[in-house]
Amino acid sequence: MRILLKLSYNGKDFHGFQYQHNYRTVQGVIEKALKKMHKTSVRIHPSSRTDRGVHALEQYCHFDTELNIEPDQWHYILNRLLPDDISVREVKEISTDFHSRFHSKGKTYRYSIYTSESVNPFHFGLKTHYPDRLDKEKMQAAMAPFIGTHDFTSFSSAKAEIKNKVRTISEFRIEETPDGFDFVITGSGFLYNMVRIMVAYVVQVGAGKREAATEEIISRKDRTIVPRTAPAEGLYLEKVYFE
Amino acid sequence: MRILLKLSYNGKDFHGFQYQHNYRTVQGVIEKALKKMHKTSVRIHPSSRTDRGVHALEQYCHFDTELNIEPDQWHYILNRLLPDDISVREVKEISTDFHSRFHSKGKTYRYSIYTSESVNPFHFGLKTHYPDRLDKEKMQAAMAPFIGTHDFTSFSSAKAEIKNKVRTISEFRIEETPDGFDFVITGSGFLYNMVRIMVAYVVQVGAGKREAATEEIISRKDRTIVPRTAPAEGLYLEKVYFE
Repeated sequence: MRILLKLSYNGKDFHGFQYQHNYRTVQGVIEKALKKMHKTSVRIHPSSRTDRGVHALEQYCHFDTELNIEPDQWHYILNRLLPDDISVREVKEISTDFHSRFHSKGKTYRYSIYTSESVNPFHFGLKTHYPDRLDKEKMQAAMAPFIGTHDFTSFSSAKAEIKNKVRTISEFRIEETPDGFDFVITGSGFLYNMVRIMVAYVVQVGAGKREAATEEIISRKDRTIVPRTAPAEGLYLEKVYFE
Repeated sequence: MRILLKLSYNGKDFHGFQYQHNYRTVQGVIEKALKKMHKTSVRIHPSSRTDRGVHALEQYCHFDTELNIEPDQWHYILNRLLPDDISVREVKEISTDFHSRFHSKGKTYRYSIYTSESVNPFHFGLKTHYPDRLDKEKMQAAMAPFIGTHDFTSFSSAKAEIKNKVRTISEFRIEETPDGFDFVITGSGFLYNMVRIMVAYVVQVGAGKREAATEEIISRKDRTIVPRTAPAEGLYLEKVYFE
């Protein structure tokens, strides 16, 4: 039997999703709860391996089990076993053909920035502080050319080993918040650090620290033109879309 | 020269205000920053030594210095040296007669509870989760008799060594929030754990787990009648009043 979990978690106190020996990770914490129930190790498979400090408003993972437990009970028992910075929001029994990662066809990310003059301690680990004024129109002008299908080499980490860097972005917009901006971005897939590099570039344009030249930067396919990566703490996986 | 700092901090990752060897505390972090500036140890004196996990929307502390620095510069330099879960909001030069603790004549605390069915990971360490329905009218009926001057022995930690347990409460009210309640309480002074014990009692009444009997409990002067203490994570020092 294959079980699909819909999760949300606060990434602040996790060293990312993926299991790491001696570090607190989302996978480590969930697999520990599952081990308690199964008395043996159970491997989970997420839609996305979020990095250290990155949050999830919606994330999925699946696992295989021989326990004969109803979805409602999985939901209840797992939330009892899990710490309070992670929450199981839905449990479904799914076909054993289904894979959380391989059958996802797109994602929405949210990146949250606040712009008040001084640090707000209650945004600690949850939003990125940027104390300079950001020009919304300038940012939107820099964001518009991302929509469509492009080679995103200039906006991916040099560490990315993947060959095909063509991705399709269908949405990239700003939502105003009481003390700043959220960027909302939807795409078919994202390269390593791609959202954080795109946001860092857009914010630099908004702060007047560089000119918008999105088409040119994309066409140069050179990571060194956009050297910054926005901090993890502002990034939220917001939605995962399946086929 | 005596300097007064107005601070706010997120208590989640601090082991309370007071200095402790080998633990991260608010005092430890501030004194470390001051030591960098003075090249020697500087002792700070807060209005209130908040417990582990307790937050401050407004807290004061003072220290004596021979550095000839303008308040604006103290403000700027200290915020550069301090971590992002603590913020200096104001700096003033004050009389050397003034003491942050001895000259405070009252405080307001806020206690924040959310009542959604499941845990919200983004309230982790910042609000207390209480999944049962709470009856606002019942809670208000239990809260009203606290107003006035009473011996609060029944609502203070057995650990409190102080003799005089008479305090005056001038305000105790509920503010509704998008997913729960905040309790706002103002008084001339508070015994150890007093707010958290009062809130635990009121919440038990609101959940229908005990009857409101505030006058009687106060008059019995017996801590064992109210055995619970609400968790630290929901508690905020909100205001400090001076003579």
